[in-house]
Amino acid sequence: MNIENIDVSSYPNSEKIYMRGKLFPNLRVGMRKINLYPTVEIVNGKRIEHPNAPVVVYDTSGPYTDPDVEIDINKGLPRDRMQWKLDREDTEELPEITSCYGRERLADRNLDRLRFPVLHKPRVAKKGHRVTQMHYARKGMITPEMEYVAIRENLNNEALGIESYITPEFVRQEVAAGRAVIASNINHPEAEPMIIGSRFAVKLNTNIGNSALSSGIEEEVAKAVWSCYWGGDTLMDLSTGDNIHETREWIIRNCCVPVGTVPIYQALEKVNGDVNRLTWEIYRDTLIEQCEQGVDYFTIHAGVLRAHADLVAKRLTGCVSRGGSIMTQWCVLHNEESFLYTHFDEICEILNKYDVAVSLGDGMRPGSTHDANDEAQFLELDVLGELTEKAWEHDVQVLIEGPGHVPMQKIPANMERQKRVCHEAPFYTLGPLTTDIAPGYDHITSAIGAAIIGSLGTAMICYVTPKEHLSLPTLADVREGVITYKIAAHAADLCKGFPGANVRDDALSKARYDFRWKDQFNLSLDPEKAKRFYLESRRDAPDADDRFCTMCGPNFCAMRISQNIAECCEK
Amino acid sequence: MNIENIDVSSYPNSEKIYMRGKLFPNLRVGMRKINLYPTVEIVNGKRIEHPNAPVVVYDTSGPYTDPDVEIDINKGLPRDRMQWKLDREDTEELPEITSCYGRERLADRNLDRLRFPVLHKPRVAKKGHRVTQMHYARKGMITPEMEYVAIRENLNNEALGIESYITPEFVRQEVAAGRAVIASNINHPEAEPMIIGSRFAVKLNTNIGNSALSSGIEEEVAKAVWSCYWGGDTLMDLSTGDNIHETREWIIRNCCVPVGTVPIYQALEKVNGDVNRLTWEIYRDTLIEQCEQGVDYFTIHAGVLRAHADLVAKRLTGCVSRGGSIMTQWCVLHNEESFLYTHFDEICEILNKYDVAVSLGDGMRPGSTHDANDEAQFLELDVLGELTEKAWEHDVQVLIEGPGHVPMQKIPANMERQKRVCHEAPFYTLGPLTTDIAPGYDHITSAIGAAIIGSLGTAMICYVTPKEHLSLPTLADVREGVITYKIAAHAADLCKGFPGANVRDDALSKARYDFRWKDQFNLSLDPEKAKRFYLESRRDAPDADDRFCTMCGPNFCAMRISQNIAECCEK
Repeated sequence: MNIENIDVSSYPNSEKIYMRGKLFPNLRVGMRKINLYPTVEIVNGKRIEHPNAPVVVYDTSGPYTDPDVEIDINKGLPRDRMQWKLDREDTEELPEITSCYGRERLADRNLDRLRFPVLHKPRVAKKGHRVTQMHYARKGMITPEMEYVAIRENLNNEALGIESYITPEFVRQEVAAGRAVIASNINHPEAEPMIIGSRFAVKLNTNIGNSALSSGIEEEVAKAVWSCYWGGDTLMDLSTGDNIHETREWIIRNCCVPVGTVPIYQALEKVNGDVNRLTWEIYRDTLIEQCEQGVDYFTIHAGVLRAHADLVAKRLTGCVSRGGSIMTQWCVLHNEESFLYTHFDEICEILNKYDVAVSLGDGMRPGSTHDANDEAQFLELDVLGELTEKAWEHDVQVLIEGPGHVPMQKIPANMERQKRVCHEAPFYTLGPLTTDIAPGYDHITSAIGAAIIGSLGTAMICYVTPKEHLSLPTLADVREGVITYKIAAHAADLCKGFPGANVRDDALSKARYDFRWKDQFNLSLDPEKAKRFYLESRRDAPDADDRFCTMCGPNFCAMRISQNIAECCEK
Repeated sequence: MNIENIDVSSYPNSEKIYMRGKLFPNLRVGMRKINLYPTVEIVNGKRIEHPNAPVVVYDTSGPYTDPDVEIDINKGLPRDRMQWKLDREDTEELPEITSCYGRERLADRNLDRLRFPVLHKPRVAKKGHRVTQMHYARKGMITPEMEYVAIRENLNNEALGIESYITPEFVRQEVAAGRAVIASNINHPEAEPMIIGSRFAVKLNTNIGNSALSSGIEEEVAKAVWSCYWGGDTLMDLSTGDNIHETREWIIRNCCVPVGTVPIYQALEKVNGDVNRLTWEIYRDTLIEQCEQGVDYFTIHAGVLRAHADLVAKRLTGCVSRGGSIMTQWCVLHNEESFLYTHFDEICEILNKYDVAVSLGDGMRPGSTHDANDEAQFLELDVLGELTEKAWEHDVQVLIEGPGHVPMQKIPANMERQKRVCHEAPFYTLGPLTTDIAPGYDHITSAIGAAIIGSLGTAMICYVTPKEHLSLPTLADVREGVITYKIAAHAADLCKGFPGANVRDDALSKARYDFRWKDQFNLSLDPEKAKRFYLESRRDAPDADDRFCTMCGPNFCAMRISQNIAECCEK
């Protein structure tokens, strides 16, 4: 397999840098440094150059943009973080994988051609141990993961003397209190630690995955790499089609960000889509299968209760969460309480043996602005609050998933209620879409909602691509969705006054005013597109060194006139 | 000239309807009615059809989507509204155009090949008369224009029994108080009246126009039509290149929405870009030239004062308004107060003879999030408030232009201050862009800001296309920009609780839940794109009649499962 069609050279004048830990000197945090051209001033005919400090940006692309790492999709990424787990001496290697399903797939010779070529033996907590970041944090331990994310969140702050409250100890406190999550399964050492919490930079999740109608393994791996490359902070594999197990292995082994899944999807595939035949035992085996592969967080719709089924029927758009609708149907068919709810303690006891975070799914999220903030949605949220406390009793890290479709005036109530009833566990929302009338543009309808809810304290926003409601995203859609959500997340960071968030904005604005076109492109979220758009109108000047703006032409360039004024005023 | 390359057939199952006036029975307000398929239910194997009420949507496309009107770009649109002006008997036809420049152009035989083929003699107020909507409103007159916009703002409300406060008398009161503007030059009877005010639906303006680097007349006319077609409520011709006068004539004669300009651009072209040579006399002649052509509103940067020049030099990105930078430079070069400010009364006395609204330009709008809400911006806003009162003394309708680049947390202060110091004159903002780091995606960075400021009371938002900062928009960019801003405006309307705003959302959501795919496409802002995206994944099923969602495939379709649950619960 190869993914050579992905062009990972779109960040000109950037270099990969690594910052070292202080508590853990061997720890190396990768970042992207954008080097800038000097500002040129002509004084009395003499050219004076004023250097511009480079800008360091948050980098989710991992080894894919490190020229010193040889990438081979068939071998997977380096497992750099494994030593940290080993050093803690609280886990053990299993002689082989233990889930029934995983063993069955491994034994099937017909799958050999699909299988990821390298087999890693899974690890699990030693008997009686919990190996979650929350467990360590509550015991007062600062882990390498904690220092890693503290360094990562600070970026330019030390170099530029910007004060920041984010220290490894602060990270520990936030994780201990459940206000932040570091999702890092011990079986996914390919991933670089990152933190999700309202006092940190807003993160974005991307969804990929095939369906029965589409797409093979190679395409999904390409989407995963593409997502990391453009800035996705976490990645959910929502595959519901063929060979889910094998697809996931390829993705995890090549993914440098935490990977999430919705295990009920695979459980349902195992019973050929027959909800009636779903059982706790099948689900439990699926959890273990995926824990051993290295999934970092599970969406679990444990807040969908039998009592909620009637409320679905009252809605304009019923239940639009796949997991939520499956579990509702199961409750109705069996006339029993959801096994996700009744077995929640057992689920947590599995999760804390690998440090898989639980992302409590909002099975009752509104599928239209009409259904936003209704009884079904808020009753479920109350249950999620109850489950949050239960998970924390097991030292399991918790995220709370949120809507969906919500008109702007109803967004603040969502955030406030989530904070209150879920005890400040990080909120992780899909959008929300602020209107229903623009299929084909729902990355935009939802970026508006995502920026607003992010600014109010949502810790992670799940991207929506232009294909939402219509089709599964292509590579181009993944890129469009990621950049759109980088915008929403960054707008929220600026709004929150996140330390140092404005450094990149100010550097780009200065480059714009200086007519340093190349720096303007290179500092942007998508340098390739910015440059391409510019050159479309300047085919005669491919070097992009004009001293005027292409929109207005030389006579009408406000910035040029403005510089003349500044010179005038100085004289 | 022809613009046949524009496809104006992208609204399937829609029909043009006209609603009649009650006060003015001959008045016909064009709207687009989207007819829907029935909801199909299968009960005991029997097919039952439940009809779905059609949805009427606000329609800016005018005659371009009326099959009964023959469109000929070379003749211009029908001048349907002229009779209203004639009926008031307060204007007179001039024997010929009166501006020096206009006459000079008309006499130049070399321009014949460029000239719009039909010459309309301009009208002007009779001596001693003011012919503005504000003048009539203050005298207690309800004009056809006022009833027209009242009907237009109500759409589905009467049919669906939705209560609305918008009556012709309410419109009159809002215009009289200066809280709303109906921009309708007596020389632009091709335009359909529309209203801009915070108690009405949020409107969007599009900018087109050539520069010295690009584009001819045909392309600009095509952009104007395209803008009306996709939903632009007003259109600014910002041409700064060749043949501005002739280009404008073509645009106005073929434009069914109000047209705005920035007269200083053309004044500067008349002196070959030499700011030093700009004079009040040249500017005044330009105003008359454009008033006689039918421009409906002028951006006038009369709030840029000599005293502000020093403040520009202090900024990160100086002055990014073309008009603002020109006037600042003029003040510095001449060491005099701006002639736009000193001659403002004379300007108003010209404008009220044609009913041209003044859009007080924000020459000091911030060009970066760094410069937002600074002294330069807010000092100018104070001056705009002073000029608003002056314009109102002359019965001239006023819009106030606003930023620009503003991070989210600073948006509310903009809106509050504008309301306070400008006496609730309608706010008309560019974006604002909420971050500077995404050139190539500034339609999105700014749609976030536009939705927020719209929800807070901004009456009209000026679109930003993906090419902002990089290049002039193409036809495709105009469409992308308009749809993006339709989203922002509509999200704001929903947020404001605008009467009936949710009708289209609910109808589309119901169509989605019913798997009425065609209705989902047809109800969307861009049916062609929605359908195209859908069909990309369903090449085998071009009829779009699947009973499941293309994202999830048949087994995982939440909505299908949800319908099964509803059926289960009913049993």
